[in-house]
Amino acid sequence: MTSKFIAIVAGVGPGTGASVARKFAKAYPVVLLARNPENFESLAKEINSSGGKALGISTDISDSGSVKNAVEAIKKEFGSDVAAAAAIFNASGGFLRKPFLELPEDVFSKSLDVSAKGGFLFSQATLPLLLKGVEQKSEHPPALIFTGATASVKSNAFMASFATGKWALRALSQSLAREYGPQGVHVSHAIIDGVIDIPRTKEWLKDLGPEAKLSADGIANDYWWLHTQPKTNFTWEIDLRPAVEKW
Amino acid sequence: MTSKFIAIVAGVGPGTGASVARKFAKAYPVVLLARNPENFESLAKEINSSGGKALGISTDISDSGSVKNAVEAIKKEFGSDVAAAAAIFNASGGFLRKPFLELPEDVFSKSLDVSAKGGFLFSQATLPLLLKGVEQKSEHPPALIFTGATASVKSNAFMASFATGKWALRALSQSLAREYGPQGVHVSHAIIDGVIDIPRTKEWLKDLGPEAKLSADGIANDYWWLHTQPKTNFTWEIDLRPAVEKW
Amino acid sequence: MTSKFIAIVAGVGPGTGASVARKFAKAYPVVLLARNPENFESLAKEINSSGGKALGISTDISDSGSVKNAVEAIKKEFGSDVAAAAAIFNASGGFLRKPFLELPEDVFSKSLDVSAKGGFLFSQATLPLLLKGVEQKSEHPPALIFTGATASVKSNAFMASFATGKWALRALSQSLAREYGPQGVHVSHAIIDGVIDIPRTKEWLKDLGPEAKLSADGIANDYWWLHTQPKTNFTWEIDLRPAVEKW
Amino acid sequence: MTSKFIAIVAGVGPGTGASVARKFAKAYPVVLLARNPENFESLAKEINSSGGKALGISTDISDSGSVKNAVEAIKKEFGSDVAAAAAIFNASGGFLRKPFLELPEDVFSKSLDVSAKGGFLFSQATLPLLLKGVEQKSEHPPALIFTGATASVKSNAFMASFATGKWALRALSQSLAREYGPQGVHVSHAIIDGVIDIPRTKEWLKDLGPEAKLSADGIANDYWWLHTQPKTNFTWEIDLRPAVEKW
Repeated sequence: MTSKFIAIVAGVGPGTGASVARKFAKAYPVVLLARNPENFESLAKEINSSGGKALGISTDISDSGSVKNAVEAIKKEFGSDVAAAAAIFNASGGFLRKPFLELPEDVFSKSLDVSAKGGFLFSQATLPLLLKGVEQKSEHPPALIFTGATASVKSNAFMASFATGKWALRALSQSLAREYGPQGVHVSHAIIDGVIDIPRTKEWLKDLGPEAKLSADGIANDYWWLHTQPKTNFTWEIDLRPAVEKW
Repeated sequence: MTSKFIAIVAGVGPGTGASVARKFAKAYPVVLLARNPENFESLAKEINSSGGKALGISTDISDSGSVKNAVEAIKKEFGSDVAAAAAIFNASGGFLRKPFLELPEDVFSKSLDVSAKGGFLFSQATLPLLLKGVEQKSEHPPALIFTGATASVKSNAFMASFATGKWALRALSQSLAREYGPQGVHVSHAIIDGVIDIPRTKEWLKDLGPEAKLSADGIANDYWWLHTQPKTNFTWEIDLRPAVEKW
Repeated sequence: MTSKFIAIVAGVGPGTGASVARKFAKAYPVVLLARNPENFESLAKEINSSGGKALGISTDISDSGSVKNAVEAIKKEFGSDVAAAAAIFNASGGFLRKPFLELPEDVFSKSLDVSAKGGFLFSQATLPLLLKGVEQKSEHPPALIFTGATASVKSNAFMASFATGKWALRALSQSLAREYGPQGVHVSHAIIDGVIDIPRTKEWLKDLGPEAKLSADGIANDYWWLHTQPKTNFTWEIDLRPAVEKW
Repeated sequence: MTSKFIAIVAGVGPGTGASVARKFAKAYPVVLLARNPENFESLAKEINSSGGKALGISTDISDSGSVKNAVEAIKKEFGSDVAAAAAIFNASGGFLRKPFLELPEDVFSKSLDVSAKGGFLFSQATLPLLLKGVEQKSEHPPALIFTGATASVKSNAFMASFATGKWALRALSQSLAREYGPQGVHVSHAIIDGVIDIPRTKEWLKDLGPEAKLSADGIANDYWWLHTQPKTNFTWEIDLRPAVEKW
């Protein structure tokens, strides 16, 4: 693979993040960001040993210093003039379903720190690289994609911590789509409405059959599809759910 | 082409409808519905003479008798057990930007008749064929796709006639998505937010550059993408707009 | 009562319509529109015999001739220069919860006819009177209020007929709010989210306690509150639901 | 005034906060929270000298220690068993309209800290008092009201910092409405869509006439109206805008 454009994925783990990284690694060198190196090490090895190129960087996406270090590591590896074709924000701050008065402040803050402030820092770090991708005429319009959830559009009882972060992230995405679309960057938001089929959820929803959970590889395909839309036909938002989902 | 599954497109004209028909004709025999045969005749000839198969049927989509006749013509051509892989509703009842008190009743009614009642009649006619597509295991989940507009989600001053029909159509789509998703039919709604690049709009928005209008072929690609999503990852709604669009 | 401004209520029945009529009758002569005179006769008598003034007119709100006759009857009673302080549209076309493929066309059409076309005809008939209310400086800004439902914002499975009409009505309301707000008419839409406590629903939700249903008089109070908002502080939309409602 | 129930207003300044405090002070002793004592001192004096009772407490609403101190000061003044009839959150973290790449991290964080985390801390501090209001049968259902903005529902270009905080606050409000409505607390959110008429905005929008700005006293009336709704008829959300507003 010889693309001079890179893809950056934040929030790499065993599910969507890994699938997205594998998908985009077929076209671009990929940068894998996660706080815990365990989350990207074997994936980076897998990509690097199968004809692709991956660089894992341990990064706390909610910390500006850590995000700056990641950008420096990227420039050290790919050159100070590196351009990005895609940046995918897949991090989130965890999930605690609790009566509101039992919700610890640090849990609430964590969701905002990762989803909202993390989204902000990731966007400020990657947009300059995506704008370079525009300048340098990447094949497909450079894309900035945010992973949302049902809780991005509906805020149920006991879901205050997760939903506030996810609503803030959707607001960020919408503002950036309006500002950077005319500049050639395709900003998108995906509402993942259902359980994703990953090792951790293996036993969930079994009674609903083998298609009751979202496919992580399917999500990656949809992100790739968003990325390949031409400038005349940008989609700002998609929802994704299993056919069986009651919504 | 030997697919036993057909695709049905209502509201074939020189823009989106024709592009969608051409795209789906690469995989399926296509049925082209329009009130005025001029809207499908040359397109049917084009498809039939280039390796595809197209059947045009003059149909008033807002009239139940006319829609029944169309279904009979389809069964006469493709057999009474015909199954559909896709049904795309692209009709709309016209557009009159007027102060509300100057809006003629028949213009208001026409929008409801085509967008809302037409959507209803088209869905009742095609869903049995799409459910047969599920039974007979079409390669991709049978899809029922509705073409919406900015006016499907925003109802501006002077837009009452167009918006009421489009909102009703979106409500129809949402209800059907919830009822028929679990049965294997993928119901989707597309919000087309901008001017589509067709002969009639050739001179529009020229000062904004060559990418200021939506590509009709691009819309067709996106509809095809919706159609190919697996049952684990259905998208109910996409928006589509040129990068330059202020929304 | 000596107000020269009238209030017009369409869709008077034993529930919200009657409560709204009684509330507005304390300030204005009220016109009661319903297809079936049984729905307004005793109410008109009650209002007329307790110090108010009410005029019942048998009207099919989905028929333009019938609506025109109603306007003539109003002008005959109150003068050709009559001005309105409020017009409240409370009609709806019934409700049939059915699998979509079992939904008769006439049921679907009826919802559109009453909610969408009825809303259109009522608005075209009353807006000229409301604009006269602006000219003649009614104490509170003349108000045009539409009664919506949960199905105005969510379109569930089996609810296609009711929801399409209600979505169309909401679109109408939103367009009119934008056009007539700057002209001084306050257009509002109320999302009634729950069961209204009327004789017909007496036995419903009993296990949830005495406050599980919406009070029709409470809705009337809220409509009156909307009516009394000054031009600086117009509310376009309110939702109303019992505290116990799961939404 | 002898009510044993108090009202608490956070974000008291020269505009909405002061009007709301004056309005609720007619029925309840009011607690005024603002970081800068200048924002409540003269108002507290005014209320205390005109038959009401007001207690100003200097509070950083985004700091849990400061909020805890405020609760202690309230209990010291009104007793440890004090019950609240209303708690109104009117704080926001400022507003910086900037290209996204020029937005300082601390500005972005401030909006989240005040609107989102501040809303969280205020709610955790006041809900126990509001639930006591339910227990002790306050005349009107205890109300928790959040002040939102256009940016609570639309996230425009250059508005990322303000909108993320406001969207998060709306998510919080929606989750709390669902959890605490059934417990008898009325949680509401107000979308203030326009410029509020306060000393600082005196010269704004003059060409649109004297009614082009929202009245702060009008907002306070609307909040009071929300507070007086009975348990059968709760409104979760209202929008408020001048009649002239283009929305």
